Formats: sequence, structure tokens, C-alpha cells
Amino acid sequence: MEILKGVGASKGIAIGQLLFYTGDPYKVEKFSVKDTSAELQRLETARKKAIDSLNRIYEKALLEIGEKDAMIFQIHAMMLDDLDYIENITNLIVNEKVNAEYAVNETAQKFAQMFLSMDDDYMKQRSTDVFDISKSLVRELSSSKAHDLEYITGKVIIAADDLMPSETVQLDKSKVMAFVTRGGSKISHSAILARTIGIPAVVGLGDSINKLEDESIVIVDGFTGAVYLQPDTETIVRFTAQRDEYLATREKLLQLKGKSSETLDGVKVEINANIGRPADISLVQANDAEGIGLFRSEFLYMESREFPTEEAQFEVYKEVLERMNGKRVIIRTLDLGADKHVPYFNIPNEDNPAMGYRAIRICLTRPEIFNAQLRALLRASVYGHLAIMVPMITSLDEVLKTKEIIENIKTQLRDEGIAYSDDFEFGIMVETPAAAMISDILAQHVDFFSIGTNDLTQYTLAVDRMNHTIASLYDPRHLAVLRMMRMIVENGKKHGIWTGICGESAADAELIPAFLAMGVHELSVSPTAVLDVRQKVRDINLALCKEKILKRLDEGTLSI
Amino acid sequence: MEILKGVGASKGIAIGQLLFYTGDPYKVEKFSVKDTSAELQRLETARKKAIDSLNRIYEKALLEIGEKDAMIFQIHAMMLDDLDYIENITNLIVNEKVNAEYAVNETAQKFAQMFLSMDDDYMKQRSTDVFDISKSLVRELSSSKAHDLEYITGKVIIAADDLMPSETVQLDKSKVMAFVTRGGSKISHSAILARTIGIPAVVGLGDSINKLEDESIVIVDGFTGAVYLQPDTETIVRFTAQRDEYLATREKLLQLKGKSSETLDGVKVEINANIGRPADISLVQANDAEGIGLFRSEFLYMESREFPTEEAQFEVYKEVLERMNGKRVIIRTLDLGADKHVPYFNIPNEDNPAMGYRAIRICLTRPEIFNAQLRALLRASVYGHLAIMVPMITSLDEVLKTKEIIENIKTQLRDEGIAYSDDFEFGIMVETPAAAMISDILAQHVDFFSIGTNDLTQYTLAVDRMNHTIASLYDPRHLAVLRMMRMIVENGKKHGIWTGICGESAADAELIPAFLAMGVHELSVSPTAVLDVRQKVRDINLALCKEKILKRLDEGTLSI
Repeated sequence: MEILKGVGASKGIAIGQLLFYTGDPYKVEKFSVKDTSAELQRLETARKKAIDSLNRIYEKALLEIGEKDAMIFQIHAMMLDDLDYIENITNLIVNEKVNAEYAVNETAQKFAQMFLSMDDDYMKQRSTDVFDISKSLVRELSSSKAHDLEYITGKVIIAADDLMPSETVQLDKSKVMAFVTRGGSKISHSAILARTIGIPAVVGLGDSINKLEDESIVIVDGFTGAVYLQPDTETIVRFTAQRDEYLATREKLLQLKGKSSETLDGVKVEINANIGRPADISLVQANDAEGIGLFRSEFLYMESREFPTEEAQFEVYKEVLERMNGKRVIIRTLDLGADKHVPYFNIPNEDNPAMGYRAIRICLTRPEIFNAQLRALLRASVYGHLAIMVPMITSLDEVLKTKEIIENIKTQLRDEGIAYSDDFEFGIMVETPAAAMISDILAQHVDFFSIGTNDLTQYTLAVDRMNHTIASLYDPRHLAVLRMMRMIVENGKKHGIWTGICGESAADAELIPAFLAMGVHELSVSPTAVLDVRQKVRDINLALCKEKILKRLDEGTLSI
Repeated sequence: MEILKGVGASKGIAIGQLLFYTGDPYKVEKFSVKDTSAELQRLETARKKAIDSLNRIYEKALLEIGEKDAMIFQIHAMMLDDLDYIENITNLIVNEKVNAEYAVNETAQKFAQMFLSMDDDYMKQRSTDVFDISKSLVRELSSSKAHDLEYITGKVIIAADDLMPSETVQLDKSKVMAFVTRGGSKISHSAILARTIGIPAVVGLGDSINKLEDESIVIVDGFTGAVYLQPDTETIVRFTAQRDEYLATREKLLQLKGKSSETLDGVKVEINANIGRPADISLVQANDAEGIGLFRSEFLYMESREFPTEEAQFEVYKEVLERMNGKRVIIRTLDLGADKHVPYFNIPNEDNPAMGYRAIRICLTRPEIFNAQLRALLRASVYGHLAIMVPMITSLDEVLKTKEIIENIKTQLRDEGIAYSDDFEFGIMVETPAAAMISDILAQHVDFFSIGTNDLTQYTLAVDRMNHTIASLYDPRHLAVLRMMRMIVENGKKHGIWTGICGESAADAELIPAFLAMGVHELSVSPTAVLDVRQKVRDINLALCKEKILKRLDEGTLSI
């Protein structure tokens, strides 16, 4: 028995027979075409098919793994709509009278090169994406499907160099038990897809993958990233038990739907979901979240070529509130800037955009943008339980200015005879050390706090959370961050308001007892994590651990 | 009487007759040269003269306004040493057989264009600098000096569109009482020069400067930025009194040399100086600082083309310690990264360098760099009262790792038979919210804290202090920052260590009573501010204001 070590990219255990998948050979020939308009038509058909395919993957991924990880497929679909990219291909076809496959391939090279030459890491990564979408286009253009994964018979574990989205999507869970790949990382598309489909996967095996043999028996451990070659009986028995236990736990989680989120000693917590667009609501409902703790409004701006109108925003907010049927929906106002940019905002380039002109700083200096959003929110307030939440607050002044704008809008709406509800809540993200340090004062002017642990951690530690060089320093469990969170919650309680957490820490099983000990009232997590968090909360006996945790926060001995 | 409004760029009042200075007409003609090597020689002579002139300005500026503002003249001198720039000029002379003036001018256009096309604001500004140095070169090359400021007779107030460094340096304080300019800002070179020479200046008057007439009487108020045209007698009397009072205050400050820095009720504070290179020590002594609270070691790295050797560093540290003659010298270890970069470090480009791979983060991952510096420091420790200070600490781990490296170096030095003193102090900069929040723990492992208010403010408020768009949000007097500072000082006292402040706030007269109320032990400011701060401290009756200030920090009603 030999053990190969890769990266666990999708949880679960699979035991079965291996099948090497060599993939479609990717070769592009160049030939002349006479009827360029027929060639353009062929390109357009392939493009539409590729976009349809990506949209199908996106919807599937959305339900299984949530909006954040699924986003890449939307980005790919959007890239296939990119005018520059398409124009470059069509120009080649028209001007050089070449076939579409060749034009696509040439364009891919050119664009990938351009992306690679950029300083920005995010843009560099786009070069992989441009190859991906170009390959799907070429595949749609070519008729050969000889090596299709569709033709697999029996249940197998797939081994491959790497899997493209267009290949992975064909994986049929009833036939493919798991896959392992030479390349890829935890966030490569095939890994994301594996989590989407819910099959175990190990990626990044490197050249050790050559040791695998067709039809041999292997065990894939998606938790640890280990692949066992020719396992002995004892190992097979051990992993079979582990697999069954994991499946049983997943089953048990589903039983938690409809159950309350309270500790063994009866302390109730609200477990909500973070979402990015109305389509995610089905996922919120499927996972029985108690409400929406963070609805990011950025998609309205990012998927538009100009400022979304008040009317367009109103329709979206109304839809979300109506579909949530009286459950609380916390809508965060515009949080663009930093790493999220939209061309028509014309935000100047900044040396440190994460500490720059963003979120409330944009809203308060460009009132026409903020007004449209707040008017749309107030108009939607009659359709459900609305809470408005403002990000990146650092001073009382920003809170008071925002409240003044809201009061003015109320007067306007009354004058115009437009309905709004006075029952909506008004809260702020506490995600800067400044807001934490003056939370006693801010608490007297808002209805709730929601701690954004991602930003709070990066500012407290002065560590850009996107910077790989110092990734090991980014630590949401840092004592300084936890003490700041405790300060916020306690200041909130002192002034009679509740505090939630909507950053990624909210789903950190090790931290949840500490959050409850501080007195956190709400945890808002990605929809797929809701039941996990509920399980964790239901396992806690808060009376037993609360004092100890608080004492360890005081002493600085809390190490997780 | 009419009052023009500009920007007060150099303090003081001047009353006198106006002289319009139109400057050297800047025209460059192109002609062919046969003897290109003679032309190259002419260029070289002019370049040397221009560099000499800049070095003279730098030394003068250093003494008058301190290292930070004087730096621009060093940068200009270094630009005249830039190989690319000079090569471009000489290539034009050699290949196109043109005169040096023309080659300089062409090169200036090209380089300025290149700098302007860069994304980085800092680099964009370099385009102005390249024009500046090119103009000085052209001026050195040309023999016409007809319009020279040297030929001014009598005492006058100069009015000009703008003044170049090479022009401003010619201003003779015995003849020029003040100047006013159409362009410029508080940090433009002419403004810095005015502060250097110690004459009042108002800049940025815009087109209103056209209202000034040659030989008319004006009052220049460098405090408020006002310029009074044809002032009436009452105004002249008023400003004469104000001028005399200001001069008397300056005189009084000088009387404070040798006096102690203690409040009216006898609380002693240590007032130290921040410096950037050994040359600044004369300034430290001239202003009677009690020690050096911050010696930035970056110049060792920034003015070198490769890593400075242990030996080279040792010589510098030894010199500073010896010249300070037993007074405490706090030397900060390497604080590169963020906005300060040195090519041979090969720091990768970062999206948010201020929250990136910098300072202690570089030192702990590149031990060869840190070792050389710490060894040099320990070896120098026998020559005076050394304190080693580490910047950008965010965790206890970083402190312990640094101490371990120091212990290892001690062992090495003992083994090698090299002397070091065990009496040096070891402290940290507290300039991240993380360090503030765990200062109770850090205090148990170091000898002192020094609060870096600049970085602490920018991380606490999540406001890049270099970003002009959000400059109004950068507020070192923000309640959150002050509360954090109090927390640091109190945690230090609880564990028996002293806390100083070495950020710009330390010289903020409005804040000094609050710092003393918190229990701050040391204020380290730019050398020229030492006596001002001493005066401020001597005017405080701490017993009278302490409780009130602390109560207002608690309540959040401290507004400065």
C-alpha cells in the first residue's frame, strides 16, 4: 500500500476502481474560410451554447456551494460576453478569413498574455480563465466528443491531469464517486465543481499521479488529501467506517431543519444567511436560515453598465423581502471600492484601496447614489421585515449624517404620497477598530451592530487579507480581534442593542462558544453552513464554559 | 485696502515694498555641435554644479526645517545621478550632435511624460521634479543671469508665479523679507525653502496675484495666508505688534534651552527628537533634545545599492551613540515596505502595501537582513545608551522571536570575543490596533512602548494617510485613537514600563495635556519642535486638568 499526498479539495471518502481520463485532445488547426458570415454564425452558436452551459453550472453550484464559490462561472459567462474579446475573434475571422477555432485560439493567447503582463494578481489569474473559456468555445465549435465523460459505465474514481469546468459539469454522481488530479488547487474550478456536485476530490497530486494505474483499487480521502494505492483490507474497513460516519453526520444535519438554534442550556441564537443576490434565497430556504443577516447590494451595481435606478433597486429589495415572508432581511448599503470596482463609478486608483475611498465614504460624498438606494430601501420597507445596514463606519458623524438623509427621504416620500414603513431597523457594520473603540457611543444611535470580522481582522492586524505573502499573519482568531469583538458586544448590550457577526468567523466552530460567551445574538453565515452552525450551537452548554472563556480573554490565554 | 487669500506656507509677518520677480525666461534653443566630447564635458560641469547647489540647499534646509521636509533636495540631487536620465541626455548629444541644453530639455519631456503615465501618485509627482532638475541644469549650462535675485537691492517682498529651488536658494534674508506666489502649496519646494530660510510666505494666490503692483506696500501674513494690499495705518500698527510678539516668542523659546521639561506641578516628561540620519544630530543638539526617541535606520538601506554590511551599520550606530554622549538613543530596526521601497529587497508589488509585507514581517522572514542589523546594534551598544525598537508588532510571537534572535547574537558575540553591553533597552512600536489590544501581554516582555500615532491612526480609522481623496477622514485626534493610546499607556504602567509617543501627534499642542493625563512618559518630535513642546509642557498644570480629561475620554466628549 502506498499513500499519495495531494490537497483535499472536496470533503468525503470514496473507495473504488480507478479510471484514467485523458480528456479531449486540444488541438486547433488553421484553415481558410470563404463564407466568413457563416463562420461568424457558427461562432455565435458556439458562444451561446457555452454561455448556456456555464449558466447551468452556475445554478447548480449556487445551490450546492453558495454564491461566493459559484461566482467564477458567472464571471466566465460574462467573459464570453466581453466585447473586446469577441471583437478580436470576429475581426480575425473577417480580416484574415480563418476558421473560428483558430481565431478563438489566437485571441486566447493574446488576451492571456495581456492579463499576465499586468501587475495585479487578480488580473494575472484572469489569463487562466481566458484559456478556459476559449477551450469551451473550441470544444463547442468542434463536433468530436469521443472522449466524453458521458460514456463512462459503472462506478469509478476519475484520475486526470486537470478537469475543465465544461468537463467536470458532465460528471454524473451516480457513476463518478470521486476524482483526483495532477494540477489544481483548493480554489481551482474543478475543486469548486467537486464541492458543488458533492463528491470527494483530491487535487494537486503532481507527478505522483503517474503511480496510479487504470482499474486499480484506490481510496480517496477528500478531508486530508491522501490517496491510498492498493489499500490493505484493514485500511478499507477503516475508511468504510469513516465514510459511513461522515454520511450519517450529513444526514443528521438535515434533521436539524425546523429545529431551534439554542444551546443545551436554552440560550437562543439567531442563525441567518449571507447572500449576494435574490437567486440565493432558494438556498437560504433549503438550509432553513432564520433570516438574512447580510444581503450584499453590490451585484446591482456590478452587473450594470450604469447606476441602477431607484426603481430597479426597489424591485429587487421588494422581491427579497416578499420571498423571505416576514423574516428579517438585513440589506447592506453600497460597499464598493477596495477590491470591488465598477468602471462607471470612476473611483481614482489608490495605493491602498482597502483603506481608501469606499463604501459609506463614497455614499456620503456622492449623495445622488446614496439617495437612490435609500429611497428604494424605504419604499420596499412595507413588503417585509427590513433592516438597513451601513458598512465601514468609523465615526458618529457618519451615522448621524446617514440618519439625517433617511429622515429627509421619509419627508420626501410622505410629500409624494409614497408608502414606507417606520418599523425597519437601522444598524451598522462594526468592521473598523475605530467603530469598535467608540461602540459605546455608536450604540446609542443605532438598532443593532453586525461585526464584519474579515475587515475588522485585517485592519486590527494591519494585514491585507488578499495578500498571499503574509497570509499566515491573517488570523481572525487573534486575541486582539476577539477582545475587540467582546468590547463591541458588551457596549451594545449596555445600551440595549443586539450584536451579530456576519464575517467568515461566524461559521468557525471553534469560535462559536466564545461568541456566545460574549453575548453575541446573531450569527450570519453562508447558506450551506447554517445547519452546521446550528448543530454546533445545540451542542454547547454555555453555563459551563462562559466564565472560563471570558476569563481567558482577560488573561490573554485563549488560544484556539 | 484689499485682502488677498492664499495659503500660509511659512510662519511670520512681513510688512514692506513689493517687487515682482518674473524669473529667468526659460527658453531652449537647438543647435548642432561638432565637438560632442566638449559638449559632454560642459554637461558634466553643469551637472556637478547643480548637485553641489542642491546639497548646499539640503544642508541649510536640514538645520532649519528638519530632515523630512529637506529630503526633497536630496532626492533632486540623486535624480541628477540617475543613470537612465544622464544616459538619455548623453546619447542625444552623441548620436544627434545637439547642444546639451536641448538634450536636457528633450530628456525632461520624455521622462516627465513617462512618470505622468504611471498609476502611482508618488511617481506622477516625479514629473514635476524632473522638470525642476532639468531647468537647473539648463540654467547652469546657460551663462545669462540677468534676472538674478542676487541683484536685488534694499529690503523687499518678492511676488512671483512660482520659485524654483535653484531660485529660492538665492534669496538673501537680509534683502527678501517674505515672498508670495501664484502657484504652489504648503508642501511645494518654494514653501519648504521659505520655512528653511525662516521668512514668511504665502503661496497659491492664483490670479489674484495680478492685483499686486510693483513698489506698493503690502503685509504678508504667513500664519493665515492673507496678503494685505495698501494697508491702512491701523492695520500696519496691528501687524507690526503681531510681528514683534511672534519674534519675541521665538526668542523666548530659545531661552528654554537647558531648562527642564516639567509641568507647573512638577510632572517631568522626556522630550526627545526623531531623526533620520547622523547629520541630524547637530539639529538635535541645537534644539536641546533630551535624547533621540526615534532614529530611523532606513537611510542605511535606501541610500545603498545593496544590503548595508554589518560593519557599515555598526559605524553609523556607534557614531550616533557616541555623539549623543550617554543620552538615550532609540534606534528603530528596519521599517521598509509600505510606501518605502528599495529595489534590491525585491519586495513583490502589493495591492495594499501599507497592510503588507513590511518592517518586522520582512525581518523575521529574511533573517540574514535582521541578523546583520541586530549584530551591528549590539556591537554598538557599548558606546552609549542604546535602546532597540522594533516596528509593526502585531503579536507576542513576533516579540519573542526577535528576543530569541537577540539572545542568539549575544551568544555568538561572546563566542567571538566581541564586546556588547547588556544594559541596552528593548522596546516596540505600538502602531497597530492589535498591539494596542494586547498591550497588557506585550508589556510583560519589553522595556518600553513607543506609540506610532501615524500608523495607529491609519489602521484604526482604516484611512490611508497618503490618500488625498479621504484626507479629511485621517484624524489623529479621533476619540478611538486617543482611547487606544490611553489603553496602551495604562497597560504599560500596570506592568512597570514607560510609554512614549513618536508619531506626529506628539507635537500637537492641543493633545499634549491629554497625553500627560494618560501618563505618557516621553514625547519624541522633530528636532525643530522640541522647544515648542517643552514650552507647552511647562505651561500645563496637570493636577488641574487630568481628571477632567480622563472623564471626557470615558464619556466620549473629548473634542479637540
